[in-house]
Amino acid sequence: MALATPRAGAAAYAPCDNMIDYDPHRWWSYFHYLRGSMVREIVARVLICVLWAVGVTAVHHHTKPLDIPATVHTLAGISLSLLLVFRTNASYDRFWEGRKLWGGIVNETRNLARASSVFMRRDAGLYGTLVRWISAFPYAAAASLRGERDLGPVASELPRDEADAVLGSQHVPLAVSQKMSAVLDEGRLRGYYPEHVQMQLDQNVQLLIDYIGGCERIHKTPMPFAYMMHLRRALMVYCYTLPFALVDSFGWITVPATFVVAYVFFGIEEIGVEIEDPFGHDDNDLPLERICETIHGNLKALMPGSAEAIHAPVSVVAIPGGGQDA
Amino acid sequence: MALATPRAGAAAYAPCDNMIDYDPHRWWSYFHYLRGSMVREIVARVLICVLWAVGVTAVHHHTKPLDIPATVHTLAGISLSLLLVFRTNASYDRFWEGRKLWGGIVNETRNLARASSVFMRRDAGLYGTLVRWISAFPYAAAASLRGERDLGPVASELPRDEADAVLGSQHVPLAVSQKMSAVLDEGRLRGYYPEHVQMQLDQNVQLLIDYIGGCERIHKTPMPFAYMMHLRRALMVYCYTLPFALVDSFGWITVPATFVVAYVFFGIEEIGVEIEDPFGHDDNDLPLERICETIHGNLKALMPGSAEAIHAPVSVVAIPGGGQDA
Amino acid sequence: MALATPRAGAAAYAPCDNMIDYDPHRWWSYFHYLRGSMVREIVARVLICVLWAVGVTAVHHHTKPLDIPATVHTLAGISLSLLLVFRTNASYDRFWEGRKLWGGIVNETRNLARASSVFMRRDAGLYGTLVRWISAFPYAAAASLRGERDLGPVASELPRDEADAVLGSQHVPLAVSQKMSAVLDEGRLRGYYPEHVQMQLDQNVQLLIDYIGGCERIHKTPMPFAYMMHLRRALMVYCYTLPFALVDSFGWITVPATFVVAYVFFGIEEIGVEIEDPFGHDDNDLPLERICETIHGNLKALMPGSAEAIHAPVSVVAIPGGGQDA
Amino acid sequence: MALATPRAGAAAYAPCDNMIDYDPHRWWSYFHYLRGSMVREIVARVLICVLWAVGVTAVHHHTKPLDIPATVHTLAGISLSLLLVFRTNASYDRFWEGRKLWGGIVNETRNLARASSVFMRRDAGLYGTLVRWISAFPYAAAASLRGERDLGPVASELPRDEADAVLGSQHVPLAVSQKMSAVLDEGRLRGYYPEHVQMQLDQNVQLLIDYIGGCERIHKTPMPFAYMMHLRRALMVYCYTLPFALVDSFGWITVPATFVVAYVFFGIEEIGVEIEDPFGHDDNDLPLERICETIHGNLKALMPGSAEAIHAPVSVVAIPGGGQDA
Amino acid sequence: MALATPRAGAAAYAPCDNMIDYDPHRWWSYFHYLRGSMVREIVARVLICVLWAVGVTAVHHHTKPLDIPATVHTLAGISLSLLLVFRTNASYDRFWEGRKLWGGIVNETRNLARASSVFMRRDAGLYGTLVRWISAFPYAAAASLRGERDLGPVASELPRDEADAVLGSQHVPLAVSQKMSAVLDEGRLRGYYPEHVQMQLDQNVQLLIDYIGGCERIHKTPMPFAYMMHLRRALMVYCYTLPFALVDSFGWITVPATFVVAYVFFGIEEIGVEIEDPFGHDDNDLPLERICETIHGNLKALMPGSAEAIHAPVSVVAIPGGGQDA
Repeated sequence: MALATPRAGAAAYAPCDNMIDYDPHRWWSYFHYLRGSMVREIVARVLICVLWAVGVTAVHHHTKPLDIPATVHTLAGISLSLLLVFRTNASYDRFWEGRKLWGGIVNETRNLARASSVFMRRDAGLYGTLVRWISAFPYAAAASLRGERDLGPVASELPRDEADAVLGSQHVPLAVSQKMSAVLDEGRLRGYYPEHVQMQLDQNVQLLIDYIGGCERIHKTPMPFAYMMHLRRALMVYCYTLPFALVDSFGWITVPATFVVAYVFFGIEEIGVEIEDPFGHDDNDLPLERICETIHGNLKALMPGSAEAIHAPVSVVAIPGGGQDA
Repeated sequence: MALATPRAGAAAYAPCDNMIDYDPHRWWSYFHYLRGSMVREIVARVLICVLWAVGVTAVHHHTKPLDIPATVHTLAGISLSLLLVFRTNASYDRFWEGRKLWGGIVNETRNLARASSVFMRRDAGLYGTLVRWISAFPYAAAASLRGERDLGPVASELPRDEADAVLGSQHVPLAVSQKMSAVLDEGRLRGYYPEHVQMQLDQNVQLLIDYIGGCERIHKTPMPFAYMMHLRRALMVYCYTLPFALVDSFGWITVPATFVVAYVFFGIEEIGVEIEDPFGHDDNDLPLERICETIHGNLKALMPGSAEAIHAPVSVVAIPGGGQDA
Repeated sequence: MALATPRAGAAAYAPCDNMIDYDPHRWWSYFHYLRGSMVREIVARVLICVLWAVGVTAVHHHTKPLDIPATVHTLAGISLSLLLVFRTNASYDRFWEGRKLWGGIVNETRNLARASSVFMRRDAGLYGTLVRWISAFPYAAAASLRGERDLGPVASELPRDEADAVLGSQHVPLAVSQKMSAVLDEGRLRGYYPEHVQMQLDQNVQLLIDYIGGCERIHKTPMPFAYMMHLRRALMVYCYTLPFALVDSFGWITVPATFVVAYVFFGIEEIGVEIEDPFGHDDNDLPLERICETIHGNLKALMPGSAEAIHAPVSVVAIPGGGQDA
Repeated sequence: MALATPRAGAAAYAPCDNMIDYDPHRWWSYFHYLRGSMVREIVARVLICVLWAVGVTAVHHHTKPLDIPATVHTLAGISLSLLLVFRTNASYDRFWEGRKLWGGIVNETRNLARASSVFMRRDAGLYGTLVRWISAFPYAAAASLRGERDLGPVASELPRDEADAVLGSQHVPLAVSQKMSAVLDEGRLRGYYPEHVQMQLDQNVQLLIDYIGGCERIHKTPMPFAYMMHLRRALMVYCYTLPFALVDSFGWITVPATFVVAYVFFGIEEIGVEIEDPFGHDDNDLPLERICETIHGNLKALMPGSAEAIHAPVSVVAIPGGGQDA
Repeated sequence: MALATPRAGAAAYAPCDNMIDYDPHRWWSYFHYLRGSMVREIVARVLICVLWAVGVTAVHHHTKPLDIPATVHTLAGISLSLLLVFRTNASYDRFWEGRKLWGGIVNETRNLARASSVFMRRDAGLYGTLVRWISAFPYAAAASLRGERDLGPVASELPRDEADAVLGSQHVPLAVSQKMSAVLDEGRLRGYYPEHVQMQLDQNVQLLIDYIGGCERIHKTPMPFAYMMHLRRALMVYCYTLPFALVDSFGWITVPATFVVAYVFFGIEEIGVEIEDPFGHDDNDLPLERICETIHGNLKALMPGSAEAIHAPVSVVAIPGGGQDA
């Protein structure tokens, strides 16, 4: 989507994230939600399991007893539950680490713009160039994680050929970061700060690269195949043998009972899948576009010529009662 | 609240946090507390569940047996318990991370004021300006997390137009941090320290921005919707089917038994909700205002002209027995 | 205690920590210990619970059957156990974080004394002043965490008026750190090193402030009230209803059985309380005074005029076979 | 393998990792996979256990009853399950830490190449040398972790004698890092940057050494022997006594029941073994070669003379509306 | 041992660690190991428990029924298992943290030798002195953690009086680090680098001190006494009451059943004890001597005059096709 109109104006950048906004304090409001609650994802495997339970119960009652004791399900159920919940929490840790990395992108874009403004504010052109490239970084990073190419609403304000070259490069966020480095180098060449200030400002660029690298790590490395596969196989065996363990004591209630267990277990497993790579367009993914907009908004306020008084040349005011050089 | 009187004097800043002060060593003292113990939050959903248990038991005894075995509740209960307690602990981790971030704000305000005092103490006016803006930062941050705008008791000592401009800016704590940067830049321009000292002092400002960014991350990112929703649905199914599993063996004691289980389970879930975003005004939230006051107190002692002797020009005393240049 | 004699000599500083020294490899040696094993803390609540069990059993046998099935205790017991053990481990994490912070204080005092000795060793007076203030820091920090005021055995070697001023300041460790900063500034003014060396040395002072800030965070922030309260209420309900679940099958053995369960559960809960704030004078708290003594010993060896040869002017020896300028 | 042709051209470097690429959202697609799902590894121990179950059941039915109650398996099963799943998660943490370290290698190679390009771009020869050595580092690191020696596709572009000397040194990645340091030093000697810029660039080299050191730590330190051994012994006792506990209630279904439990338990244990050292050639190991290729690709785009326009001399463009020196 | 011959030659430094080398992929190879698998440590307490079970069973069968239901063991067993496994994992975290700290020592010795070689390589005598002291550090650290005093095989190459003074100092690793600082200071005085390069190199010395400080923290701080004691008491009560719960249903099989449970539980507890302080000479401790040897080997290759060509004066080669100053 973003790729189609990489240089469209800001108007096109209304948040189009799917993440569901909800208030965890409102208990009863979301029970009817299908969206984002994985019902669509797990309905097939739960239904098949329920049909199987119907079959088992029917055969047991009408043809031949099929019941087994529930001992094994109790014994193996503990390991399985532990593995299942640990997997979901490993996924949550990845979700939260992804969120932290994007929080770091928010912080470092703020820091870079703020720290460089002190030295560059005399040169509105150069500082504006820097802020525009900073603003392009999160859009480039988000698009890159989604297999797209984009520079966000600021693209139209960048020189067309440079923006096109960056969009055409092998790794767009890396190319954007090189643009930032180049502007910072230009600032030194114009004499606004010495080399060690440049190196210090460059630390923030370096952190931005670390953060996008961290996101790519999460995006490209799923749970080890053996872990995922063993869990799913064990889950399948567990759920498909469950009707045998229940049928004698539960009768036809075996069917809803199997439904509940399958729903709970397949659901927990699916949560792990949903949130282990939180950079996509799914309902439970991170609102990357909203985060990009926040950064864009923060940076716009810092642009030379913005309306906010605090960005006018800063004047330090002597406080009455504490005279300067007193 | 704070927004209404953003420039009121210090008198208005008595701690108004709701966090309950308690001594964990006193075991019996808090059992009667309703406040802060989530009784009000979960009473409705527990009561409905209890009424349902009354209905199920009545029908079972008088109309038609409704009992099922407890096997499924045992099997699914382990997963559910694990998921429930893990979720609560993920929330506790967020609570504790939020506390750490505010601890970092305490540390960095201290560090910035202390490290800059060495270089700036000759210029009481400039140093006083810096300390005042530092003191305003935590109030601005706390208010920002609560959707308010505030600069704390120091607001009245700041130039009116600058304070108003900062309060009117898009992101108040960011605007305050820019003021700090500007004062640090002014200090360099006045020749108190070279650029690399300024960059080093600016690192503390950078950390302050990182910390407020971290708080915003926690505040704006709830648990993934799928996680929360699946847990609540499973919890509902579990609690509402429990009376069927208990009614045959427990008789009318099914009702208090269901009450206990529902109270324990809904309570654990509610703890997770209460502490996952610890920056509000709730009973279990962090005492942000008290933390702001602590910072304000520490900084007031550092202000030029404060009563404490140690902040007078520092004299290093030669120790008897270890002569200087010996 | 320390407050009463803030300037007593070193003789008064024999370790008075209560922490129990034990060898985990000796299995049978500590079973008879009452001290440190929380027996005194939980004896009341366990005994009341046992008496209750006696009453329940007596009524059941002589008056009227009171037994209920154990199903609910099994179902809710898993959640309760998980919550209990997680809480204890959250407390252990705080204990360990507190230990890490004090380990950091050990490291940074060593680092500051070592790194500054290179530049300051020509000036025994100034370096001695610095080392004395560094040595005072851990005592000030430990006392501050315990609501006391102290500068340790080195207090008598510090100028009386400065030590008194520091002891009288709002935040003693912060005041000590300012003294260190002042000595470091004096060193620069005397021309021993340039500004960026001072800034680098000041980083260690900054870390010391971060560590004491971290300790204060742990000390002042108990577990969220809702978490603690819900756990205790659920624990009470669990233990007081347990005799009903046991009485029919256990008979009079219900009483010791209830004792064992109450002892185990209340004990785990009490561990969490004991170690969540590890900076006090309790048996299970950290040996802060011993740590302070270790630092004091390390620093004494670094003092100008100490007996250890390695602290005499350092001479770098040319190695045979690798000639200088070869 | 790589050792045999250490200087073969890029053509030889098609990814030869075994890691299975899979889409966790596709549920049913991988159930038939033998590769990577540990079936081969655990089939022997599971089969022996099943044969044992056949024997036990046969003796029980035809010779002499051998059944015992399942109580002990329930009691000890919880500890065993916990230990098992914790061990697997400790292994996953090592897997993930290994992935993070390689993510760090990706980031730091990018950062070093980008940060140094600003200062070195005038000297294509020197910069090209640096980028080639950077590109050799990940290959050297991956090979070193696998007991091999390699410099990757860039080897043919390095001076033959230096590459051979590095390949013959005690620790190849360390020797490569020294080459980088030497090039950075040469850059300073040629006057492109002062010492502190060199030190800052050297920080990235230092991080690369830290990361390879971290990988060696994971590679060389298995789980403590006692932990592994106790778990396996307990697992053996558990699985080989299980048929006795099941045989009376399960009859001949004891055999598939034992199979399922042994499959689940041995499988979880095997996952832990598979992923605790993720740097080998196994199906579940990290795709080190693919990561090396990614780095190589990123760096190739940065080489002087590469096709991508953004690496041509950077020109900062004045933005209309924000004039320079305005 | 090391103390007896602190200056013996390298020949005396064959690895004498006890850590068991094993391949986790070989499943059946280690089941017969007594060494390292804690059998000797727990045999006494398990045997006593088994004898007790024999007594209980005998009395039950011949004198008077002693059986109780297993309900309480089920209820309390979950908490106990959780506490047990969490304790073992807390110990594993300490083991792993200790390994990380030693990994850090490996990295920083490498970094310090590599980074300083660039500036010092002109002066083989001074650089050789530095590398020798760096090489002595890990031996001093390992010995210090084991209550010994040692400088490793390099001791014989150090000036006798300085080595003796260091070995006689209060804290040997700290004294070694001061020697490094002194050499680095000498390098600056000889004009090889300015102060800020010295400070940057000193950062690595600082990290070495942080790491040895971290190891001392782990070594000196056992699990809180209350945690260890409560766990052991609960374990004792659990295991000694278990025969009563089993005797009725298990008959004489109570004895092996009690054996298995006691073996599993006491074994898990013992793992925690074995690995919580991983710096000793035990079978499950870290191979500190092997790590020291690795460092020594790495550093020997860096010594001036070593055979490896890459340490000869480094020459940067112009790459064909990318001319210098092109």
